[in-house]
Formats: sequence, structure tokens, C-alpha cells
Amino acid sequence: MSQLPQPLNVSIEDHHVFIMECLRHVGASEQHALIVADALALTDSWGTFTHGSKLLSGYTSRVKHGGCQTDVDPEIVRDGPSWAIVNGNSTLGQVAATFAMQTAIGKAREAGMAYVGVHNSCHFGAAGVYSAMAADENMIGISTANDIPSVAAPGSRKAVLGTNPFSYAIPARRHPPILLDIAMSTVAGGKVYAAHQLGKEIPDNWIIDASGRPTTDGSLYPKNAALAPMSGHKGYGLALLMESLAGVLSGANLTWNVKAWISDSPDEPTHHGAGFLAFNVGVMQNMDEFLNRVDGLIDEIHNAPKIEGVDRLYVPGEMEWERREIAKENGVTLPPDVVMVLRQMTREIGLETDIV
Amino acid sequence: MSQLPQPLNVSIEDHHVFIMECLRHVGASEQHALIVADALALTDSWGTFTHGSKLLSGYTSRVKHGGCQTDVDPEIVRDGPSWAIVNGNSTLGQVAATFAMQTAIGKAREAGMAYVGVHNSCHFGAAGVYSAMAADENMIGISTANDIPSVAAPGSRKAVLGTNPFSYAIPARRHPPILLDIAMSTVAGGKVYAAHQLGKEIPDNWIIDASGRPTTDGSLYPKNAALAPMSGHKGYGLALLMESLAGVLSGANLTWNVKAWISDSPDEPTHHGAGFLAFNVGVMQNMDEFLNRVDGLIDEIHNAPKIEGVDRLYVPGEMEWERREIAKENGVTLPPDVVMVLRQMTREIGLETDIV
Repeated sequence: MSQLPQPLNVSIEDHHVFIMECLRHVGASEQHALIVADALALTDSWGTFTHGSKLLSGYTSRVKHGGCQTDVDPEIVRDGPSWAIVNGNSTLGQVAATFAMQTAIGKAREAGMAYVGVHNSCHFGAAGVYSAMAADENMIGISTANDIPSVAAPGSRKAVLGTNPFSYAIPARRHPPILLDIAMSTVAGGKVYAAHQLGKEIPDNWIIDASGRPTTDGSLYPKNAALAPMSGHKGYGLALLMESLAGVLSGANLTWNVKAWISDSPDEPTHHGAGFLAFNVGVMQNMDEFLNRVDGLIDEIHNAPKIEGVDRLYVPGEMEWERREIAKENGVTLPPDVVMVLRQMTREIGLETDIV
Repeated sequence: MSQLPQPLNVSIEDHHVFIMECLRHVGASEQHALIVADALALTDSWGTFTHGSKLLSGYTSRVKHGGCQTDVDPEIVRDGPSWAIVNGNSTLGQVAATFAMQTAIGKAREAGMAYVGVHNSCHFGAAGVYSAMAADENMIGISTANDIPSVAAPGSRKAVLGTNPFSYAIPARRHPPILLDIAMSTVAGGKVYAAHQLGKEIPDNWIIDASGRPTTDGSLYPKNAALAPMSGHKGYGLALLMESLAGVLSGANLTWNVKAWISDSPDEPTHHGAGFLAFNVGVMQNMDEFLNRVDGLIDEIHNAPKIEGVDRLYVPGEMEWERREIAKENGVTLPPDVVMVLRQMTREIGLETDIV
């Protein structure tokens, strides 16, 4: 375990500039670097540090070595009134996902709702970024992706499916959008890495060792351990739906045919898949009434009786949007593991910066 | 605790006849009774006894007292290329849900995929019944519903959301469809009732008591206890999505404005909501390839390394389809709690039958 640096406070604007600089330094196009910087700076401002700029190290490596392309754009290869299949053309996952959700929103504007599946993509970071795009347009957004297997099935002693993130966003009026972003495992792999990098023991329901037994040793993951599915057969079953919507239906690679974006050769595409849904609320219901009903639902949950010692009940995303408001004023405080990874990365790519 | 009867073996055909008889006896139309009998006999043949004919007692009561209507049909009140909003017209939940999924399948045939939301429905039984309808048409199907609150949020000591079932089905070729049907609670309320009726103590992660503490006393539920959400904030967050897709977007009643279909006055509608999605696989991908890829995914999971002592790995629905194959040959063996409830019900409605 290397010595961890201090947390680092940085303004969202400077952080965005830094992310752009890193990607531009390894040769990314301005347009693609901007899309990735928007996504990662937003994610860090939510306090979701496992899926923010910490990922840059893998992304810069893939851009530098050609596994991710930034001189081509994703494209629609087939479509109909309420769907499209997009070839990500080995662009960065954020670029392919942003294009796909924009396509879903456009289709939903005409048809009412739409699905867009993406193949030949890469790791897309936090799924919530794309769902939030739909909520910004007063639509319900859903995002999912597949990934190399890291999650066991009940009874298996090896991983069979990816963490296969799932996210949704629902627009509200007085409140920020409801926004959930979860892995189908008990926790995302990033949390196991982060705990390990911070020298912490992990709870015994996060991973299983090579024999299938629960363990608190995070260092075993991912080589000699698999993540436990959330709630057993339920999380496993949901991960299989995500594999199907993000992978099978989109025409992407599946399970072990997806490459590990962190550890596999950075000069080859990873062939991740992703899936996006947009629901155009305003054509189905009166938009004002819908927003009032969502606000009312949130108020009702806020006002529900609390367990002694609990001050507040939160709806999904509420903590993240509050952290973002604070970050807009006071900057983002990057935790030690993120600062460490970012400093290693800038050294590796030979970038001189005074931001981290 | 009353004396429990013996399990009862009955052929699927006789069981279907029995369910029809019960509903017809209280005045249901032949067409609506047939839809409900199809759904409940299918569910019992899967071995999902908490959501099969055990529910008949509540349904017959609502038909008898007018809370569920069988002389009107559900109708589309607004629609577009890839969506429809359906008024269930206080028909039985199975009738409204079947109409809605058929509508979604029809829309998906034209547009590629579709969402149908239903308001003014009732409890619809097992969500998997409707998802399976889509898989029968070589489509991916998703079904969800809301219900009166019974599930706590992390930090609440009362229920804030329903169990809000979620189901999906994916067609395969050599294998039966993948079929998941889960509650957003650790377990469905029906499992707490069933354990209580069988005199069993429940695990301490199923419910919380009125102060918010975990308890193993199933008799507290539902009056003095709430179900725990599966995987804490994840299940709670997913339940809120189901409330939104089944309730808010469909225009249905929400949370405490949904009536309890078991205990509230049987002469009034319950105003449940439900939501359905159908994805027309064949327009997006080559159908043969898609089915082969789903088969391959299932094979891969079957062949994954198993924990010592585990013989087989299952995909969702596999156990249920196998039980159904056995039930087609040997009949369904209704468990004691179901037999008890059915005998009480036939006495209450005054039906003479030699089946149960």
C-alpha cells in the first residue's frame, strides 16, 4: 500500500479543465474530450468518486494506444420509429452513450418513447449521467451497460456476469430529479478497489473467494474473487436483464467476450454494450400534473415516520444533487485514492499541471 | 393457527376449471373468468403458490361486491406510436394487465418497442404472466405494478412504497424463456403470510417492527411491521421507479391512495397502476442470431464453476418452467396454506365443488 496523499479541493471548472487537458494531451479530439470531461466532472461533483475522474487513467491509456478512437463518431446502423442500434465505432464509452441517449430522446420526442442499443462501445462511467440527460428534457431516462464478468450467480464460485450498472432519472419540479445509479452486485467493484486502496477491510457480503466462500479480504478481487449479487437471485436476475438489454439486443459482445477496460491491452477495442430508454412524459400525461405528482411523492417520503436517531429520509440522487450544489460553491474535494491515481496518471502521460 | 389440511394434487385442467367455476359462481363474465383462470393456473403450475389461486379469495370477494367489474373492458384512453395509456375500468387486474400487454405487443410490432401504462386496475397477480406473453411472441417483455405501501425506505419505520413487483421475460430457442419475477422487498408479503400460516419463524431481514427494528415475528405484518427493501437503498430506489412507471406515468393512484385489495372494502375499486414494455427483437436484430445468443448465454451460466455441493446453476424462470412440465404430467400439488384458503373461499361463496 503506497502512502496516500491528502484530499484535494478543486473547483468544478478547474477540474473540468484538468480532465480536458489530460485527454487532449494523449491526442483526444476536443469534441470527445469535452463530452468525457462533462461526464466525469459531473460525476465527481455528485461525490461519486469511484466513477468520476478516477477512471481517466484507463481512458487516457486507451486513447493513447488506440483502443478508443476519437477521430470517428458513433453512428446509427439501423433504426425504426421507437428504437435504434448504434455502432459506437470504438469511441470512448461516454461519447457513444451520450450519442445514444440523445438519439433515444430524439426518437421519444416523435414516437413517445424509445430504446437505443449500442455495440462496440467502451466503459461509459456512471450510468446516471445519461439518465440525467433525459430528465433535463423532462423525460424519464433509463441507462444500463454490460461489462466483463465480476459478479457470481447464486451457487457459482466464479463470476458469470458483469456488475451491469442500472440507472434511472425522473424529472421533478421543486425537487431535483430522482436519480438512482446502482450495480447489480452488493457493491460496485470500484468500492472494493477504493476500500483496498484506503487499507480498509470490507464487509463479508461484498465478495466471495475462489472457493465461493464470503471473505473480507478486498485484495483478492478481481483475480481470486467475485462480487456477490445484490440480494442473491434478484441481483443476479437483474444483471441478466441488463446483459440482455445492453448486450444481446444491441449486438454487443457478451460476458467474457467483453475486454477489461482497465487491464486488457489498451490498443484494442473493449466491445462493451449499453442500452438506453427515454419516456416522453409530456405526450402521455399533462407535464405539470406529472411533475406535481413526483414532487408529492418525494414530499410524502420525506415526511414518513423515521427510525429513532434518523433525521432525514432521502430519495435516490438527493444526496448527490446536494453535494453538487455545495461543490458549485466550494469546489469538489477529491479523496486520497483519486488524487493518488490522478497524479500517477499525469506522470505516466507526461502532463505538467498545477491542478492536481 | 387453524389446523392445516394436507397438500392436494390436482391436474392443471381441473384446477383451471375450478378457478373458472369460482369466478363464474360470483358473477364474473366468462371472458374475464377465463383470463384470470389462465393466469392463476399458469402461476400455480410454476409453483409460485403465493401468487396463484390463493389470490382467488380476494378476487371473488371483489367481483361479488362490485369492486371489480366484469361487464366492462379496459380501454385505451390516449396513445401514440410507441405508447398507450389504458383505463382498466376497475376490471380484475389480470384482465387489465393482459389487455395492456397485448396492446404493448401490438404497438411494438409496428414501432419496434412500446410502453403501456394502466390506471384504475386492481392487483394483477404474478407479474411474470404478462412478461411471458411477450416472450411467446418472440419479444422481450417487462411488467411492473404498484400496490399499497408495505416496504420501508432505509431509515423509515413505516412502509413508504409497495412491494411493486418487477418481471421480465426474454425468449430463447433450446431453453424456455428467461423469466424473472421479483418484489422490491427482500421477500414478497405473500411469503410472510405463507410462513405465518405454516407456523414458521421468518428470517430477521424480511420485516421491521413498528420501531424500525428487524424482527422474526411474521404475525406483526402488515399491521405492525413493514417489509425491508431488498439490498437497502437499491430495492427502495427500484421500488420508486416501479411506482413511477406503473403509477405516476400511467395516471394511477399512488402509495396510500391505492386501496388494499385484500382488506379494504370489496365494493370499491382499488385504483392500482401497472406498466408494461415490449421490445420487438426481430426488427432490431436477426431473430435466429438473437435466440442463439440467448441460448449461448444460458449455456455459459449452466457451465460456470460451481461451489462445492452445488449441482446446478439456474437462470431465472428455469425452476418454474421445469415445475410446469412436471405439473403437465403429474398435476399441481397445492400446498396446505393454499388448500386451506381455497376451502374457506368456496364455503364463503357457497360453491359446491369436488375439486378442492
